[in-house]
Amino acid sequence: MSMHNQEMRMLQEIAGAFLRHPEQINQLSEADAEIVPFPKEEADYLVLKIDGISEEIQQKLYEAPAQIGWMAITVTISDLAAVGAEPLGVLQALQIPEVFLENQAWMAEFRRGVNAACGTYGVPILGGDTNTAPLLAVTTAGVATGKKGKTLLRKGISNGDALYATGALGLGNAYAYAHYFDAQWKVDYQPLARLQESRVIRDFASACMDTSDGLFPALSVLAELNDLGFILHTPLEKLLHPEAMQIGRATQIPPWIWLAGPHGEYELIFSIPTERIHAFETTCAHNHLPVFYLGVAQSVPKIDFISEQLKVSCEPARIANLFLEAKGDVQLYFKLLLQQHRQWMNL
Amino acid sequence: MSMHNQEMRMLQEIAGAFLRHPEQINQLSEADAEIVPFPKEEADYLVLKIDGISEEIQQKLYEAPAQIGWMAITVTISDLAAVGAEPLGVLQALQIPEVFLENQAWMAEFRRGVNAACGTYGVPILGGDTNTAPLLAVTTAGVATGKKGKTLLRKGISNGDALYATGALGLGNAYAYAHYFDAQWKVDYQPLARLQESRVIRDFASACMDTSDGLFPALSVLAELNDLGFILHTPLEKLLHPEAMQIGRATQIPPWIWLAGPHGEYELIFSIPTERIHAFETTCAHNHLPVFYLGVAQSVPKIDFISEQLKVSCEPARIANLFLEAKGDVQLYFKLLLQQHRQWMNL
Repeated sequence: MSMHNQEMRMLQEIAGAFLRHPEQINQLSEADAEIVPFPKEEADYLVLKIDGISEEIQQKLYEAPAQIGWMAITVTISDLAAVGAEPLGVLQALQIPEVFLENQAWMAEFRRGVNAACGTYGVPILGGDTNTAPLLAVTTAGVATGKKGKTLLRKGISNGDALYATGALGLGNAYAYAHYFDAQWKVDYQPLARLQESRVIRDFASACMDTSDGLFPALSVLAELNDLGFILHTPLEKLLHPEAMQIGRATQIPPWIWLAGPHGEYELIFSIPTERIHAFETTCAHNHLPVFYLGVAQSVPKIDFISEQLKVSCEPARIANLFLEAKGDVQLYFKLLLQQHRQWMNL
Repeated sequence: MSMHNQEMRMLQEIAGAFLRHPEQINQLSEADAEIVPFPKEEADYLVLKIDGISEEIQQKLYEAPAQIGWMAITVTISDLAAVGAEPLGVLQALQIPEVFLENQAWMAEFRRGVNAACGTYGVPILGGDTNTAPLLAVTTAGVATGKKGKTLLRKGISNGDALYATGALGLGNAYAYAHYFDAQWKVDYQPLARLQESRVIRDFASACMDTSDGLFPALSVLAELNDLGFILHTPLEKLLHPEAMQIGRATQIPPWIWLAGPHGEYELIFSIPTERIHAFETTCAHNHLPVFYLGVAQSVPKIDFISEQLKVSCEPARIANLFLEAKGDVQLYFKLLLQQHRQWMNL
């Protein structure tokens, strides 16, 4: 076999190990682009998303190759789920140092992570592109279909709509805390994009968004776009993921700080209009779909919340802004969070 | 305005400056993913491509921000054109050092390059993702539709099919040569993805591929996939781009070396079955579409070509392999090319 063809075979080996689309028209390398039949009958919209993980890799927040593979797929599928879309597949662009490309164990682990995610979500890899580069980065583009009336924007929330989450919150920040500040805590971080849940949510919700950046940043965006605020009736400690709760208890870090972002947990936050709440909750119960009630949308542009003994009513962007004020410096950010807490506690 | 919302506005300013899809359902930031109507009547297939330019940027082969913007769009549109697809839009993932992000002149030039390409191809930016990173890299995902019978693979060439190119070849290597070896030559490099041409070609061709990696690497892939070879009847000097020709004359570098890759010119190489040649050439003439006749497919797995006084019949991958043998070392690669030339010339 010629060397040029050997390289083609090697690329096929890398790519061939991923889950493939059963009806893809072209086999690997057989066309300059990827060709799949489009399910016309089931779709009104094409839904698309591109997302990269490079900052998390540079900061070694994601380090294990299987985790990197899992996250590269999950971040994009989570966004498609937030829109209520049905994924058709994912394209993957890899910038990869030669040292990884030549490390078979590393590559096998990376593929295992990608395949575990693709298998879990039932989403094939349609194609990809591999560039050698000094620093590792993975970019994925997700392609999905959407139906009229079942495609969710971040906009559409009305005053009085109830606000829910698909799961407990704060794991992303707990993971980042352990990573940056306190290595004695071992936090498992393999978030699940809420694709199954979104298939129910899209029948009822007025708006939806994922918590890829954490709860409060998501609420800030939803408040801004919908020109309203939120009253969180459920005390935040009841929304906390067990691992965030445990570390919070040991470290005295208050509940709201675990929900401040910027590293989220890929749950969906969504609003249900009052008249659909009963049907929605019935459907969730019927489908054994646990959802967390957070509170309601209010016309006042404030977020009101309870975090243990603390009661706060603040501007929607107040908490999200602290990370921006820290300009990416996690040490400073953590200081600003604690300072904000003392201020609110009048300490 | 809050800082968090200021950031949203800033992102909108960056993204809002790009050409948008007139029927996109969501405005900027209004949804976790991008939503566009799908033109069901006009499409049987969804055609997708992801492509990154990072190696070219690291090697400073693409350095001016406008050129980087132009190329990021062009590389992906060229692949969609090679498949005979109609682009719906492009998603753009940016990994960008803060120093560029904060440099308004740089950003304006980058946007100018992106917009010039999008305007030229009539393709909107559907959405994007921006990550700060130590090294600049741009990844684009192209989304397009394809029609049954008009969607072109690299496979499908029969013995005797005629081989054509959409334009003169060798500009990519001439540009790279000037960049790496001889700065006295100023080579303009702003290749045009052959989208217009592909709208004619897809009605006639049996296979198609772009020359993003140069002519001989493309021929090597086409030969391998179709299990045949090519006789290039047209002497290579007649296919050369004027700038490659000029540098070639001054430097005594023979014609075939300009077509050896790996840096191509984004022309399309395609095959026309014998019985359609007349209709194809008539249509090209009628549409004032210049095409270059290269030769024919042959059953023998060899590429036969004439480069000035040199006549060669070699394995299809022979020339493409030289770059792989050099393992990315351009100095060594150039040496291997000249060595191969001397060997063929019996010098």
